[in-house]
Amino acid sequence: MRPSKRKPDEMRAVSFERGISKHAEGSCLVKFGDTHVLCTASLEERVPPWLRNAGRGWVTAEYGMLPRSTGERMRRESTAGKQGGRTLEIQRLIGRSLRAVVDLEALGEVQITVDCDVLQADGGTRTASITGGFIALHDCLSWMEARSMVSVAKVLKDQVAAISCGIHDGQPVLDLDYIEDSAAGTDANFVMTGKGGIVEIQGTAEGEPFSDDQFQELMRLARKGIGRLVELQKMAIG
Amino acid sequence: MRPSKRKPDEMRAVSFERGISKHAEGSCLVKFGDTHVLCTASLEERVPPWLRNAGRGWVTAEYGMLPRSTGERMRRESTAGKQGGRTLEIQRLIGRSLRAVVDLEALGEVQITVDCDVLQADGGTRTASITGGFIALHDCLSWMEARSMVSVAKVLKDQVAAISCGIHDGQPVLDLDYIEDSAAGTDANFVMTGKGGIVEIQGTAEGEPFSDDQFQELMRLARKGIGRLVELQKMAIG
Amino acid sequence: MRPSKRKPDEMRAVSFERGISKHAEGSCLVKFGDTHVLCTASLEERVPPWLRNAGRGWVTAEYGMLPRSTGERMRRESTAGKQGGRTLEIQRLIGRSLRAVVDLEALGEVQITVDCDVLQADGGTRTASITGGFIALHDCLSWMEARSMVSVAKVLKDQVAAISCGIHDGQPVLDLDYIEDSAAGTDANFVMTGKGGIVEIQGTAEGEPFSDDQFQELMRLARKGIGRLVELQKMAIG
Amino acid sequence: MRPSKRKPDEMRAVSFERGISKHAEGSCLVKFGDTHVLCTASLEERVPPWLRNAGRGWVTAEYGMLPRSTGERMRRESTAGKQGGRTLEIQRLIGRSLRAVVDLEALGEVQITVDCDVLQADGGTRTASITGGFIALHDCLSWMEARSMVSVAKVLKDQVAAISCGIHDGQPVLDLDYIEDSAAGTDANFVMTGKGGIVEIQGTAEGEPFSDDQFQELMRLARKGIGRLVELQKMAIG
Amino acid sequence: MRPSKRKPDEMRAVSFERGISKHAEGSCLVKFGDTHVLCTASLEERVPPWLRNAGRGWVTAEYGMLPRSTGERMRRESTAGKQGGRTLEIQRLIGRSLRAVVDLEALGEVQITVDCDVLQADGGTRTASITGGFIALHDCLSWMEARSMVSVAKVLKDQVAAISCGIHDGQPVLDLDYIEDSAAGTDANFVMTGKGGIVEIQGTAEGEPFSDDQFQELMRLARKGIGRLVELQKMAIG
Amino acid sequence: MRPSKRKPDEMRAVSFERGISKHAEGSCLVKFGDTHVLCTASLEERVPPWLRNAGRGWVTAEYGMLPRSTGERMRRESTAGKQGGRTLEIQRLIGRSLRAVVDLEALGEVQITVDCDVLQADGGTRTASITGGFIALHDCLSWMEARSMVSVAKVLKDQVAAISCGIHDGQPVLDLDYIEDSAAGTDANFVMTGKGGIVEIQGTAEGEPFSDDQFQELMRLARKGIGRLVELQKMAIG
Repeated sequence: MRPSKRKPDEMRAVSFERGISKHAEGSCLVKFGDTHVLCTASLEERVPPWLRNAGRGWVTAEYGMLPRSTGERMRRESTAGKQGGRTLEIQRLIGRSLRAVVDLEALGEVQITVDCDVLQADGGTRTASITGGFIALHDCLSWMEARSMVSVAKVLKDQVAAISCGIHDGQPVLDLDYIEDSAAGTDANFVMTGKGGIVEIQGTAEGEPFSDDQFQELMRLARKGIGRLVELQKMAIG
Repeated sequence: MRPSKRKPDEMRAVSFERGISKHAEGSCLVKFGDTHVLCTASLEERVPPWLRNAGRGWVTAEYGMLPRSTGERMRRESTAGKQGGRTLEIQRLIGRSLRAVVDLEALGEVQITVDCDVLQADGGTRTASITGGFIALHDCLSWMEARSMVSVAKVLKDQVAAISCGIHDGQPVLDLDYIEDSAAGTDANFVMTGKGGIVEIQGTAEGEPFSDDQFQELMRLARKGIGRLVELQKMAIG
Repeated sequence: MRPSKRKPDEMRAVSFERGISKHAEGSCLVKFGDTHVLCTASLEERVPPWLRNAGRGWVTAEYGMLPRSTGERMRRESTAGKQGGRTLEIQRLIGRSLRAVVDLEALGEVQITVDCDVLQADGGTRTASITGGFIALHDCLSWMEARSMVSVAKVLKDQVAAISCGIHDGQPVLDLDYIEDSAAGTDANFVMTGKGGIVEIQGTAEGEPFSDDQFQELMRLARKGIGRLVELQKMAIG
Repeated sequence: MRPSKRKPDEMRAVSFERGISKHAEGSCLVKFGDTHVLCTASLEERVPPWLRNAGRGWVTAEYGMLPRSTGERMRRESTAGKQGGRTLEIQRLIGRSLRAVVDLEALGEVQITVDCDVLQADGGTRTASITGGFIALHDCLSWMEARSMVSVAKVLKDQVAAISCGIHDGQPVLDLDYIEDSAAGTDANFVMTGKGGIVEIQGTAEGEPFSDDQFQELMRLARKGIGRLVELQKMAIG
Repeated sequence: MRPSKRKPDEMRAVSFERGISKHAEGSCLVKFGDTHVLCTASLEERVPPWLRNAGRGWVTAEYGMLPRSTGERMRRESTAGKQGGRTLEIQRLIGRSLRAVVDLEALGEVQITVDCDVLQADGGTRTASITGGFIALHDCLSWMEARSMVSVAKVLKDQVAAISCGIHDGQPVLDLDYIEDSAAGTDANFVMTGKGGIVEIQGTAEGEPFSDDQFQELMRLARKGIGRLVELQKMAIG
Repeated sequence: MRPSKRKPDEMRAVSFERGISKHAEGSCLVKFGDTHVLCTASLEERVPPWLRNAGRGWVTAEYGMLPRSTGERMRRESTAGKQGGRTLEIQRLIGRSLRAVVDLEALGEVQITVDCDVLQADGGTRTASITGGFIALHDCLSWMEARSMVSVAKVLKDQVAAISCGIHDGQPVLDLDYIEDSAAGTDANFVMTGKGGIVEIQGTAEGEPFSDDQFQELMRLARKGIGRLVELQKMAIG
């Protein structure tokens, strides 16, 4: 039995609240249960130096956690003087995942920065960030389309969503919350497109190594969960 | 006429949403119109090194803005490698203001850190942070009282709230929003207690110097506004 | 009775030593009693990026304390890796105060940096910095006028000076020294122009909140002190 | 045809040169073709603060590249002021991978730091680091065993090695060199134990998403490559 | 002919102003012509971690330049975020030079930090710092002796002073000022004790390499100059 | 008797391994006994900002030590956040020494960066870096000559090499290893050209000051050692 009473293949309640920010071109407050991430997509005219005059745009992501988004207060990264390794790892993953469904030529020479700030954390912040960040990105592109800057249909090649799986008490389960994550022997994150293509797989044995069979089962669960997330995204963006 | 159509002595709609964080001992989402600040109060066992074994506790504050809380995306301070001068100035002000109503001996040897993170900015983020931070602090103390750690009545000597005033188009006005703030010739922030004691006054001429008479009028407006904020705080914390 | 035997409205001995630096376009060693600040004004051709081709110049300030300017040796900010919050707060205040009396269009597209370095501290370093920094700025402009670069009369709209006041042992007093400052219940800094316009007011209750009446009395003292400083500046710059 | 003329399932020449460092308790210069990594294992008495008096030790890793280990000279991270995101990501991976085969209780309260410094890079530096780092770690433990500090057999639960695979020109291939890596549509790193348990899987679509079938083929290749590496490790450590 | 009209073996006017700081245990404003350095010696109870309970004390030095001590304003090192290479090099030299004449056992378990801050620079700031720093150190020890903490005679084994020499226009000259230093083909700094022992020699060819004979001549000049400085120190400390 | 059994004027075995790096334009693994330094020379098109359009090039150096190149593991400078004072001092010395034999006009508007990374340290890392760095620089220039970019004969005015000397147990000795260096009363580094010109002298008394006579003897030893190094360099570069 999972601590949350969920069935092995049961995700937490997922919701997307769009247009949450007065200023951002696209924004979405995504919730995977008690994990709440505020995603904003900001359009900027300038591209990174290495892309100047290349006829292409860029999509990048930044990730942060509010100091008390977690059970114990964490030190603010601005006072630590730098982003930690985990933060850098996650924001690189979010950026890669979103770019996997974007046609950068069709975007044109602009940059969209997707900021994912965790207001409350309960496991799965990176997967929620990718899944909600996609909505913010979509809405930013819609904002641009309304101003005849791009065609959303041309820029967005597909949807993208992400989910975590893990082996909890010997049982492969979908969408780990913090309690499960802390206890899980194996933890894996999957990023996939709407059409089912795999964008990223990250599987880690925290304690004992895992087997091929276990991994296949995690992948099966992930595929099911991402299928559901993609449906929910579709409903959200209508 | 103010851009917002408000009367000179009219504040924006103010609201306090308590218990917004699953983890923090006290929390409050405070809104002054379109300015939204998430305040959490975190109890920590350790006090700063210079207070060890002094028989007293400490209350401190940190302040941050999400990158796209503003009209144009700002650089994240964690990537800049340090908190900027404005951030440090504001968080020092919030900390001083909250400590003005706390009996640190009665608190005992613990530290409470009040984090004020701006989700959306439209002027007055520091005054909203102080006003909402007080609620979060109060609720943290209630949490402690429920565990027989302190007596709220002994620790909290009074309420504290803050408001900005300024001279807009020659007219002293209360509670500047971003448009007014950008155009204001003079900008002043006032922090006062529930009983009307003054905790902090910061008045700055952005363009022309101001006169004694103008300053007295700003102070009169502030006193009125803070009186109203103190009432609203009372209603919130019941 | 004040520790220094001064009367409540008595300032410390104030002196300005001009031309103290062989290299700087303008310089002044200002003393408020045992508080000694070396102020230099440096002319630079380049303006900040956001002012390029704007037809206006800029005046900015930096502030520092020598490690043993204080009773106990302080850590050097260059080894700490950054300027502290207090330093940033003070140098922002000095810059704003000086700009309040400068016509930036009349200055033309150059930048003047006023460095205020505290050689010895005994309270009131920020007010001495503003008051002496004005002399350094004035002399830098005279240097420029001698080279037909500007007209001092057009660039400088007025004089500017600053003084601190506080409530010491229940008594409002003028120009706090370090001993008084450490013990003061309330501490306020005032920046005013030669014509009596208010540029900045910063009042802080260190312990008990203060009342309107107390604040008015501090303001009265400040006005008197600044009147005297403005006279002394006039004598200094002939 | 691969640029290197290798067959799809053919690794580069792999060699381990043990005892390369006069000072380190264990050391190994590992070569995967033109990728050369100097691995040293350093024994330290102190453990991280969060492990003090916990009856367990720690194994950690750090990773660096010499500035001209690459085709174009890279900026030295010490002059950049921090380790980049890629560096942090890799050294976290190396540390996790090595800990997967270590019994930290059996190690006792000491820390072993495995430094992996890339002298020359040609793709696969992280997999070479893990594979060679294991040898350095092993030899450090032997050094300790010779001094009756530990039993290697009890501390090391298994061997661990790593290899990259990718889809190059539509063809799944083993052990990518730099040219292949730059052009690969999909890039995956696998870390496995001597007994075939999976420690870490990281698969990333650089361009097009990949399919389940493609991923299974990469995993099959990896399993073969790691089997061979484990044999070579066995020969090296006798 | 030297730009300053001085003879080849003629130093600039040298003066020591003792007791310049109200707070420091020892202090000295040293002038070598237009080079002015404020030296303070601060007594601290704590020693560096690696000296704890070693029965010995420590003498260290820090060096800084005010931003406009130079012909063109330099960036403040606190805003640059670190001390530059030249600064570190100089403060290490000052510390080594002062320690050369101190018996650290006789000093006891305290640390003396000698801060050398350049108020105005015209060449030779490091040699002036060593020569004046010695006076500040001496006076700090006298302060301690007056409190029965040490015996100056036992702690100070000798005097120490420093001077620069260089080859200007083919002519070996003593005590380079800034103009000479900028043009000098070879620049050398010498640190010697009162008894004539050599503490440090640093000679650098800026353009053409120099010969043994040239170097011997520089050394001869330095010996003469340092002899004079040692006399002046004696007169200063009476 | 020296700990290494060497005669006072006997250097350690010296070797140069050229072309050690697949990527660098010039490279050399230099060994002075157990001190091993990997030197690479990297050609870059861009020159430092202050040299743009000046018709001259630049040669600069960077220095680093692998964390376990030393007897006890050192902290990596990239995690410390900056290069230490010793590192900066050494790399400035290497750069100056190499530039002493380069005609920067003849080099043209390019920059060559010589990286000296210590793989294993046993005293004399800076002198080995200069001596081996010269070979890497030479080979980089040969690479350029082969592409008709420069004439080696015109760019390189001479050879340059360096050696340390010291007074060990009262005896002046050549080429200190780590054990001797730690115990030496006086330590001096000499940099000279092939024709015998002096480029740099750095002599430091670690304990007792040294005399003129002692210094002359160190210099005599250095001249002998550098003569031998220059011969070995000649043999290496054919």
